[in-house]
Amino acid sequence: MITAPAGFLAGATTAGIKPSGKPDMALVVNQGPNFDAAAVFTRNRVVAAPVKLSREAVADGTVQAVIYNSGNANACNGEQGDKDAAAIVEATAEHTGIPAANIAACSTGLIGELLPMDKALAGVEVVAGDLGADAAHGKSAAEAIMTTDTVAKEALIEAEGWSMGAMGKGVGMMAPSLATMLVCITTDAVTSSEALHSALQAASDQTFNTLDVDGSTSTNDTVIIMASGASGKEPSQEELDAAVLAVCADIADQLQADAEGVTKRVKIIVEGTATDEQALNAARTLGRDNLFKCAMFGSDPNWGRVLAAVGMADAEMDPDNISVFFNDQAVCVGSTGAPGARDVDLSGADIDVRVDLGTGGTGTAFVRTTDLSHDYVEINSAYSS
Amino acid sequence: MITAPAGFLAGATTAGIKPSGKPDMALVVNQGPNFDAAAVFTRNRVVAAPVKLSREAVADGTVQAVIYNSGNANACNGEQGDKDAAAIVEATAEHTGIPAANIAACSTGLIGELLPMDKALAGVEVVAGDLGADAAHGKSAAEAIMTTDTVAKEALIEAEGWSMGAMGKGVGMMAPSLATMLVCITTDAVTSSEALHSALQAASDQTFNTLDVDGSTSTNDTVIIMASGASGKEPSQEELDAAVLAVCADIADQLQADAEGVTKRVKIIVEGTATDEQALNAARTLGRDNLFKCAMFGSDPNWGRVLAAVGMADAEMDPDNISVFFNDQAVCVGSTGAPGARDVDLSGADIDVRVDLGTGGTGTAFVRTTDLSHDYVEINSAYSS
Repeated sequence: MITAPAGFLAGATTAGIKPSGKPDMALVVNQGPNFDAAAVFTRNRVVAAPVKLSREAVADGTVQAVIYNSGNANACNGEQGDKDAAAIVEATAEHTGIPAANIAACSTGLIGELLPMDKALAGVEVVAGDLGADAAHGKSAAEAIMTTDTVAKEALIEAEGWSMGAMGKGVGMMAPSLATMLVCITTDAVTSSEALHSALQAASDQTFNTLDVDGSTSTNDTVIIMASGASGKEPSQEELDAAVLAVCADIADQLQADAEGVTKRVKIIVEGTATDEQALNAARTLGRDNLFKCAMFGSDPNWGRVLAAVGMADAEMDPDNISVFFNDQAVCVGSTGAPGARDVDLSGADIDVRVDLGTGGTGTAFVRTTDLSHDYVEINSAYSS
Repeated sequence: MITAPAGFLAGATTAGIKPSGKPDMALVVNQGPNFDAAAVFTRNRVVAAPVKLSREAVADGTVQAVIYNSGNANACNGEQGDKDAAAIVEATAEHTGIPAANIAACSTGLIGELLPMDKALAGVEVVAGDLGADAAHGKSAAEAIMTTDTVAKEALIEAEGWSMGAMGKGVGMMAPSLATMLVCITTDAVTSSEALHSALQAASDQTFNTLDVDGSTSTNDTVIIMASGASGKEPSQEELDAAVLAVCADIADQLQADAEGVTKRVKIIVEGTATDEQALNAARTLGRDNLFKCAMFGSDPNWGRVLAAVGMADAEMDPDNISVFFNDQAVCVGSTGAPGARDVDLSGADIDVRVDLGTGGTGTAFVRTTDLSHDYVEINSAYSS
């Protein structure tokens, strides 16, 4: 619902980049009067051409438009990839009248294939000529950035006199990533790049960065927020923080629910460590353990695998005093099985796992992950073929 | 072929610990005249009762017997687990006449279930009464320690006047582990505990520690080597090192080939880093990346996933100068695709992946992993049910 805030236009088209013939290009334009923006990007050392270009575009704190394509990541394409990303931005500038230096670009899809530039450049012209501020145009953009997503992901927060919308695709970001995660957030609030960046960084840490589907991290992950100021309302930093956190949490929930092959949404909480960082290490180690994730797929309350996994984490623990709870039921206390532990019902789609590492410390952290299913293997073994 | 070296007896029985009714207890006895021994154990902080007990047994550099059970890991069973492991060792002492302090124990199977002690103790009596030095008795022991293994794993090295035999199960050790890895190595060489430990540590680093099937690490992993001295031959440290390395490499090959659900054996070599440690970090990161492992399952030369994975590794690299080779064919040079990269044939069961991180450094390392298949998910989602 990126077009819900005043001052934003969006559109989409089928340029033919995807072999499937589904929509594969989108454009989001901020009409102002303000162009404040902020972004967070993948922490991968290997980054796609559009990420390099977008980092430069947002460096001055303003972005007026973002051009998206799906079906091709334009990553690991060398100098030609950089030239192609720049050419798409230049074409966007030509057809919108926005300076190229104020246009960001995001790509998602297969790594290491050159973009079909004739199709991409023709697509830019089409999408720039069919922009709209209505909900349908926003939705079409959300659909055009999908890859293995099964549903489009949109969010909207209505505040007093201003609003914030968002669209997203994939699952990923910083530490995690299943497929590339792209998120676009729009608001008509009056604010500053600094305020946006502060709010976005904090919200990302609490939402996208707690998602860890398979430990992989994309070359293309990008979250961009743009503020038009068109509402004339200037929220406090606290109000802005709350709104950004809310839309990021909403999109993150949708990403987790639609992760490739997911049949279970698993929230892992670790406590009883000296520091939050140690708790996060242990939570991530468990969230990435394939034996644990397979057990979740099988609705199997195999708490022994929880102990085996956290036992390898970079965190202090008391190996004889670890407790594990599945859906708030104790299944392991003092590092041994609790009565009825094998009978806990994990057949639902949501599973909470809480682990106390038994040091008496106050450190705590959580991550959200998914099970490891047959569909995950199927989707990811056939992706490029 | 643990009974091939002179001085060793072995046997097995079906005690009824496994619900399947398959053999589940084994005993290996060193008749001397020497009892030198060494062992390496899991690095997990959460360790099974028999691991604690075996650490004590081997602490003085001698072990006369090892009692094995499969079907139950006797891990995370608290004080009762420690008592049960001790009771099994005491029963072994009673029926063999060997001091309990010189007997090690190994268990493998489900974590967090108490052993059926009536069955286990009756099994000890049966197996202690049916020991033999022939190949059939050695084979029966190798079969009785299997869990999800589909074949028994044995190895033998014949040297001049002395020999070294081994049996193993599972895949695991230190960093890695799919299921618990247990290995027993026997030799009739005249040697010392210190010489055995030196040889075993070096060989483990080169073999078991390079296996990384799913990044999980068991609570029970144990490799024990025992030397009877019955040949009267005393090899040099170099000869001993070579023999231990050879049997460990043989068993490691068999473990990788029989890993749960494996359809591909993947060797990952990383080079072009400042240090070997950085190369190992990158190799492990790639070997644990589920997207890469799914691509291997699909025989898919998706080198982009290699770059995305190593880009997250704790290793220095030149992001614009990474090269990737599949089965010695260049698929990515200078971080971009090489001609014909998508046409590389990965349909065979063995895939070599070589990655040069492009810093010009001389660091190098390798790990061996497997693909991520439907069978892996199936086996591990149904394990305890």
